[in-house]
Amino acid sequence: MSREEREQQIKEAAKKVFLEKGFRNTVMDDIMQETKLSRGGLYHHYKSTSEILYDIMDEGNRMREKAVKSTIELRQGLSFNEIVTETIVDKILSENDFIPIYAMFLQEIKQDKNLNNLYEKLKEKSTKTILELFNCTDNSENIVSSLDLIINFINTMILGCEILQVRDNFRNNKDILKKMILVVLNNKEE
Amino acid sequence: MSREEREQQIKEAAKKVFLEKGFRNTVMDDIMQETKLSRGGLYHHYKSTSEILYDIMDEGNRMREKAVKSTIELRQGLSFNEIVTETIVDKILSENDFIPIYAMFLQEIKQDKNLNNLYEKLKEKSTKTILELFNCTDNSENIVSSLDLIINFINTMILGCEILQVRDNFRNNKDILKKMILVVLNNKEE
Repeated sequence: MSREEREQQIKEAAKKVFLEKGFRNTVMDDIMQETKLSRGGLYHHYKSTSEILYDIMDEGNRMREKAVKSTIELRQGLSFNEIVTETIVDKILSENDFIPIYAMFLQEIKQDKNLNNLYEKLKEKSTKTILELFNCTDNSENIVSSLDLIINFINTMILGCEILQVRDNFRNNKDILKKMILVVLNNKEE
Repeated sequence: MSREEREQQIKEAAKKVFLEKGFRNTVMDDIMQETKLSRGGLYHHYKSTSEILYDIMDEGNRMREKAVKSTIELRQGLSFNEIVTETIVDKILSENDFIPIYAMFLQEIKQDKNLNNLYEKLKEKSTKTILELFNCTDNSENIVSSLDLIINFINTMILGCEILQVRDNFRNNKDILKKMILVVLNNKEE
């Protein structure tokens, strides 16, 4: 296996264990057991469960980035704010392997300094990515000023979808959700 | 002590233990120890930790009801939707003893059938209360149709405030939050 394949294997195993036991209750030995790797084999790639979690989140972010790029390309006719709104709603309502882990991660950051740092790092990275994706337009300054509120709102809604299982209700009211997000974007323009 | 005083004492002790150990890890023995009551003394009032939790939530709801009533009285000059918006934003941003317990409770309902039933019961009860509080106006039908979305949104935002610690950020953007909620209310009117 290449380095990349091996790390992919470790991440998949870790996702499974995190979801079963919770991140907080998982130790490196659990990942060793799940991957059937030797101690040296595992530690060669990752020193801690936090490192693995970070890589999983980072992979999730890169997947999201690709999705955003394709939304931008598909929606050429829409206004800048409409495209941004579309990508935000997509993110809030999206359902994939990463979401339950991400929601679990968000629930842990308050108790765990290490994870909180990880969260800040990811937030910084996605802020940078969002700015890069959209910096071609005149409106980018509004985005900067409302980005913190928007990211907090997105993460809050993702938590609600997962914890309260209200994704279907939000999905059925997608148009209202879009209008709510446009309020944030338009408000910052004033 | 009167029955009411005793139950208040039990609820206060339980709140403390729930916050320390988490609801899921608390057993009746922990409450016995904290209250210094005998087994018979405690079980005379409550048969399970779920029963205590329900009473704590119910008390929180009644406090909220009072707050809503005073908001309605203080804001006589505002339109119906503006008053509703005001009470919703107040609820989302409110900070008191019940909120951390309520957020903890919301995080558990997915895993615990018993708590999920409790949640549905509380949701039904507050729906009824909200309708009673507002049924004097012409707009009450709009409220009914959007109530499920609104309650899901409120609970989602409460979770965000507690878990992500973004209450201050939301509070600083209170006007935007109000406009977002007006979108829901106005949308259902169309």
